[in-house]
Amino acid sequence: MKIAILPGDGIGPEIVDQAVNVLNALDLKFEMESAPVGGAGYAAHGHPLPEATLKLAQEADAILFGAVGDWKYDTLERSLRPEQAILGLRKNLNLFANLRPAILYPELSGASTLKPEVVSGLDILIIRELTGDIYFGKPRGVRIATDGAFVGEREGYDTMRYAETEIRRIAHVAFQAAQKRDKRLTSVDKANVLETFQFWKDIVTDVHKEYPDVALDHMYVDNAAMQLIRAPKKFDVMVTGNMFGDILSDAAAMLTGSIGMLPSASLDKNNKGLYEPSHGSAPDIAGKGIANPLATILSAAMMLRFSLGLPEQADRIENAVKKVLAQGLRTPDIYEAGTTKVGTVEMGEAVVRAL
Amino acid sequence: MKIAILPGDGIGPEIVDQAVNVLNALDLKFEMESAPVGGAGYAAHGHPLPEATLKLAQEADAILFGAVGDWKYDTLERSLRPEQAILGLRKNLNLFANLRPAILYPELSGASTLKPEVVSGLDILIIRELTGDIYFGKPRGVRIATDGAFVGEREGYDTMRYAETEIRRIAHVAFQAAQKRDKRLTSVDKANVLETFQFWKDIVTDVHKEYPDVALDHMYVDNAAMQLIRAPKKFDVMVTGNMFGDILSDAAAMLTGSIGMLPSASLDKNNKGLYEPSHGSAPDIAGKGIANPLATILSAAMMLRFSLGLPEQADRIENAVKKVLAQGLRTPDIYEAGTTKVGTVEMGEAVVRAL
Ligand SMILES: CC(C)[C@H](C(=O)O)[C@@H](O)C(=O)O
Ligand SMILES: CC(C)[C@H](C(=O)O)[C@@H](O)C(=O)O
Repeated sequence: MKIAILPGDGIGPEIVDQAVNVLNALDLKFEMESAPVGGAGYAAHGHPLPEATLKLAQEADAILFGAVGDWKYDTLERSLRPEQAILGLRKNLNLFANLRPAILYPELSGASTLKPEVVSGLDILIIRELTGDIYFGKPRGVRIATDGAFVGEREGYDTMRYAETEIRRIAHVAFQAAQKRDKRLTSVDKANVLETFQFWKDIVTDVHKEYPDVALDHMYVDNAAMQLIRAPKKFDVMVTGNMFGDILSDAAAMLTGSIGMLPSASLDKNNKGLYEPSHGSAPDIAGKGIANPLATILSAAMMLRFSLGLPEQADRIENAVKKVLAQGLRTPDIYEAGTTKVGTVEMGEAVVRAL
Repeated sequence: MKIAILPGDGIGPEIVDQAVNVLNALDLKFEMESAPVGGAGYAAHGHPLPEATLKLAQEADAILFGAVGDWKYDTLERSLRPEQAILGLRKNLNLFANLRPAILYPELSGASTLKPEVVSGLDILIIRELTGDIYFGKPRGVRIATDGAFVGEREGYDTMRYAETEIRRIAHVAFQAAQKRDKRLTSVDKANVLETFQFWKDIVTDVHKEYPDVALDHMYVDNAAMQLIRAPKKFDVMVTGNMFGDILSDAAAMLTGSIGMLPSASLDKNNKGLYEPSHGSAPDIAGKGIANPLATILSAAMMLRFSLGLPEQADRIENAVKKVLAQGLRTPDIYEAGTTKVGTVEMGEAVVRAL
C-alpha cells in the first residue's frame, strides 16, 4: 500500500513527521513517498500543486496532508496561492465527501469557551460536500453588469450549483454514517432563499426513502449556526454543501476549544482519501516545536480505517492518543494547570510508546 | 411622522403591541397604521406582502416589524411563503444596510452558553448587506446541466453577485459606524475562493482610504465563525455580505444566549428603515403571553435614533429596559433563579412605567 505524504507549509512538516513515525511504529508494509505542496510546492516548482505531486497523489492509495499557507505567499496571484493546492487535489481526485468529527475529549473539556455542561461529551460528525457548490461553479469572475440596478458598472460574480448526482452521493454517505451512529441526520440548507438548496432538500428527502431507520430533519443554515452554539449535543450527523460546510465545520470544531485534536477525511467514491488535521498551517508557531501533532496522528488513524481497511490499527492509534491524554501530556494549545506541557516531538514519541 | 406597524405571525402581534404601547407612552405625535404581512398577509389577501402593505411601508417614515412564519404556511409554494414578505420589503425599499448589535447585558450573562469571561461585556455590531449577493442574483433555478461533469442531468443553481456601488455603500455605512465606536472594522469575505468576495475585499480596501482613523482587517468567513466562538470580544464592527451576514449575525446573537433581547435595523440610503427583533416568530409559544417583547421595544428605540431623529427618546427607552432588567423582571426565555418571572404584557407595562 502506498501513502502519499504531503507535509505542506508552516507547522505541516513537523506534525506530519510525527504522524509518519506513528505509522512506521505499527510495523506494517507501507510505502510512503513525500512531495511538496502549497507554498512549498510553489517554492520548489513554481506551482502550489506541482504536476509530480498531483501524480503521486493520484497513484497513492491514500494521502496524508499537513497544512498549507504562509504569509509570504499572500501577495501571489490567487491561482498560485497555497490553498489552490487543496482545492486542486479535491477536484482532481474527486474527493467529494469530507468527514469532520467534532469530538470533545473528556480530559479537555476545560479547553472549550462553552460551558462544560453544554459541550462535555460532544460527539458530532459533519459531512461536507467538497467538489461542488459555489467553490467550483462557472461562470465566475468580474464583469460589467448587463442587467439589474447597476448596469454598466463592474460586478464580481460566482455560480452556485449542485447536480442531482452530487447531492445523491453525499446524501448516501451521510445516511450510511448516521446508520453507524445514533441514526439521526440533519441536512442543512437555505431552501427558503436558494434554488440550489431547495433542490438539495428535495433530493435528500428522496434518498431518505432508502434509509427508513435514520431520522432526517432539515435545518436552515442560519439556524444551524445558532443551534451549534445553543445546544450542540443535540446533533448526531449533519450534512451540507461545500460553502455552508466550510463555515459550520469550523464553528463546530471551535466549540471543542481544541482544534489541534481534530482530524478530517476527504473521500472519493471508492474510499480513497486525503487525510488532514482540521486546523491550519499556523505559520506563527512554525519551527518552534510546539505544534500539536495529535490531529494529524488521528487523521492517520482515519486513513487506516477508511482507505486502507485496517480498522484495528486505527483503534490502536486512537487508544494511544487517549492514553497520552490520560497521562496528562499536553502541547501548549491544550495546556491547563496541573498537566504536563510537552512539545511536538515529545507528544509524537509518547503516542508511539503508548501504541 | 408616520410609522407602519407590521405585526406579522406567531408572537409578532403580541410583542409589537408592547412596543407600540411604549411608543405611545413617549407622548410624541406619531401616526401609526397597521397592515398584515407574512402568513397574516397571505391569510388576508392571498400574498405574504399584500400590495396595500407594501404601499403603506413605502409611504411611512419607518416600519416596525414583528416576525413572520408559521408551520401552517410550510406547504405553500415558495413565492407565497411568509419569509418572502421580508425579502420583498428589503428589495422594494432598498433597505441595504442591516445593523445587528450583539450585546450581552451584564444582568443576563448567565444566559449565554459561553463561559462568562468569554462573553461578559460583549458589544459587537454586525453590519450585513441586505439587497445583493446570492439572495437576489439571477439567473437561478433548476435546469438541465449543459457543462461540467454532470451534463444532461438536473441541477439547482443560483448566482452570487455584488456590484461596485453595492459594496461601496455598505462599506461607508460600516466605516462610519466604526468611527462612532472603537474604530475597528473587520470585513468578512471568502476571497480565497470566490471572485465576488475578492472584488468585495478590493473595494472595501479602497473605501478604507477615506477613513484612515479606522483600523480595517479582512477575515475569511470560516475563520470569522471560529473567532466569534473563540474570542468574540475581540471584534468591534464586522461587515459582510447578505449570505455570510445571515449566518454570522445569528451566530453572534446566539453567543449572548438572549436573542429575545436583540433588536435590528435595516436602512436605506436616507436612513429610512425597517426595525425588527433578531429572533423569529416562535409559533410554538404564540398566544401564550410569554414571549419577550424587549427585542421589539429596543427595535423601536433604534427606529427613533436612526430614522426619526429622536436619539434622546431612544436613550429613554433603552434606559427603561435596563431598569426593568435591574429590577429583576424576566420573561421565561431569560429567567434565572432569583429573578421574577413575568409575561409579555407585564414586561411591556414595566418598561412603560420605567420611562
Ligand atoms: C483554504 C480554503 C480554500 C479551504 C476551503 O474553504 O475549503 C479551507 O477553509 C478548508 O476548509 O479546507
Ligand atoms: C427568513 C429569511 C429569508 C431571512 C434571511 O435569510 O435573510 C432571515 O433568516 C433573516 O436573517 O432575516
